Amino acid sequence: MEWIHKRTIMIVGLGLIGGSYARALRRLGYRVEAIDTNADAIRYALDHGIIDAGYTDVEADALGSADAVIFALYPGTLLRWIGENQHLLKEGAMLTDVTGVKSCIVYDVQKMLRPDLEFIAAHPMAGREVSGVENSDDRIFRDANYIVVPTEKNTEQGILWCRELGQILGFAHISELTPEEHDDMIGFVSQLTHCIAIALMTCSENRHLADYTGDSFRDLTRIARINDRMWSELFLRNKEPLLRQMDTFLREFKQLRDLLSEEDAQGLREKMRLSTERRGYFDKQA
Amino acid sequence: MEWIHKRTIMIVGLGLIGGSYARALRRLGYRVEAIDTNADAIRYALDHGIIDAGYTDVEADALGSADAVIFALYPGTLLRWIGENQHLLKEGAMLTDVTGVKSCIVYDVQKMLRPDLEFIAAHPMAGREVSGVENSDDRIFRDANYIVVPTEKNTEQGILWCRELGQILGFAHISELTPEEHDDMIGFVSQLTHCIAIALMTCSENRHLADYTGDSFRDLTRIARINDRMWSELFLRNKEPLLRQMDTFLREFKQLRDLLSEEDAQGLREKMRLSTERRGYFDKQA
Repeated sequence: MEWIHKRTIMIVGLGLIGGSYARALRRLGYRVEAIDTNADAIRYALDHGIIDAGYTDVEADALGSADAVIFALYPGTLLRWIGENQHLLKEGAMLTDVTGVKSCIVYDVQKMLRPDLEFIAAHPMAGREVSGVENSDDRIFRDANYIVVPTEKNTEQGILWCRELGQILGFAHISELTPEEHDDMIGFVSQLTHCIAIALMTCSENRHLADYTGDSFRDLTRIARINDRMWSELFLRNKEPLLRQMDTFLREFKQLRDLLSEEDAQGLREKMRLSTERRGYFDKQA
Repeated sequence: MEWIHKRTIMIVGLGLIGGSYARALRRLGYRVEAIDTNADAIRYALDHGIIDAGYTDVEADALGSADAVIFALYPGTLLRWIGENQHLLKEGAMLTDVTGVKSCIVYDVQKMLRPDLEFIAAHPMAGREVSGVENSDDRIFRDANYIVVPTEKNTEQGILWCRELGQILGFAHISELTPEEHDDMIGFVSQLTHCIAIALMTCSENRHLADYTGDSFRDLTRIARINDRMWSELFLRNKEPLLRQMDTFLREFKQLRDLLSEEDAQGLREKMRLSTERRGYFDKQA
């Protein structure tokens, strides 16, 4: 398909996800270059054969010869970067991203973009509790979901290109959502769960409980180790959908609390049976 | 120690935990007998060499010759059983339990108990998402905590006996808490986490999200598969401590929600840094 014409790939932002993309694509035979303001990240990636070339600043020649550009930046940085540097990109280049929120990004990018370029948003739902290119590892894609997030400005060809990118990266499941569907979904399955983990960890001074924590507490707080700069930006840029999900959860938790307070055994058991039935369904889908 | 004089052990309630105790103790050379109203459980345990003898009803002869009795029953059943059957127990027998709540059990049992018997409460913090003797497995004790919960009515000898039981069962960590300390702790690390998992699973019709759940959602809802009869009883019998923990969590979650609503990036990042620091401490203890 299109891929045979897109041999040089530029990754802008060489952290955990950018580095994992680079590893997978270079192994597949693409020429992979990267831009990151962090010189250590570029040096590490060159030393370890993760990229073919790297730059700590915008390089006109390199950008002008990249057939595809993958943005692995924080949302605000991504918007600013495209505004400032899109004039340097190769005519007809394909652009995509890895950002965890979409409505606040994709419309603004597509509105300002040169007409010969196409930006097709994607969200690789993969990650680790650690960050940085030195922790990158494309095996994190193996069991993960890859979501293509097109708008009416995208071409069929662009959508296909983006789906194929997910396929060659090795994602287990590739799907499509609108930006709004994506942000609602991610507000629930990812952002709300992180809010819960944070609140559980911060709600009381619990250090003395370390001896007694079983698997339950460890499972629920694993994701309480969080990159505060990135996640605060993701939360704020998805404010309305996330607030809706938080309020839904709050209402439900409060209801469970009131059933306990009223000693409503049947009501509690009904909630438990529903949660068991639903979680059973999720296990079957796994 | 005392153990050489306690060769015959009766397990009352042959489910997942009772069965796991039986497997470990029989392998260590004890004679292990069990009482369970479920004939299938007894038959399974006999067929698989988990117990030496089993009964589906109270057996005066068997109870009269047991040196130690381990109760693996629901709290209400445990209280009733001891009230009705303690006259059958061997003089000087040691009694312990595996119940997940303590204040509501231990004082009542000790108050009604024959003066020659000693009941020393214990909580093996181990389990699986499945139940029944057919799923029993004493390897679940290996990385787990075992908590001895004495009161002023217990003797030093009784406490030592109970600690040694935890040791020979293979628990990784053995400690002591008062009933009140235990119930506060368990309200936080176990019951609150189960409430959160239930509410997350029941707060919205989320079946269509099965395709998109990443590890976060799966981690937070693993324990949403729950034995509703057992857990509703445990919640209700630990009502006050659990309500306190739920309210603490509710306040904190609400605060996080308000930081987001007010777009207080610094406030959000402070919470995230605190959760990251605390969770890092837990990881170090693991």
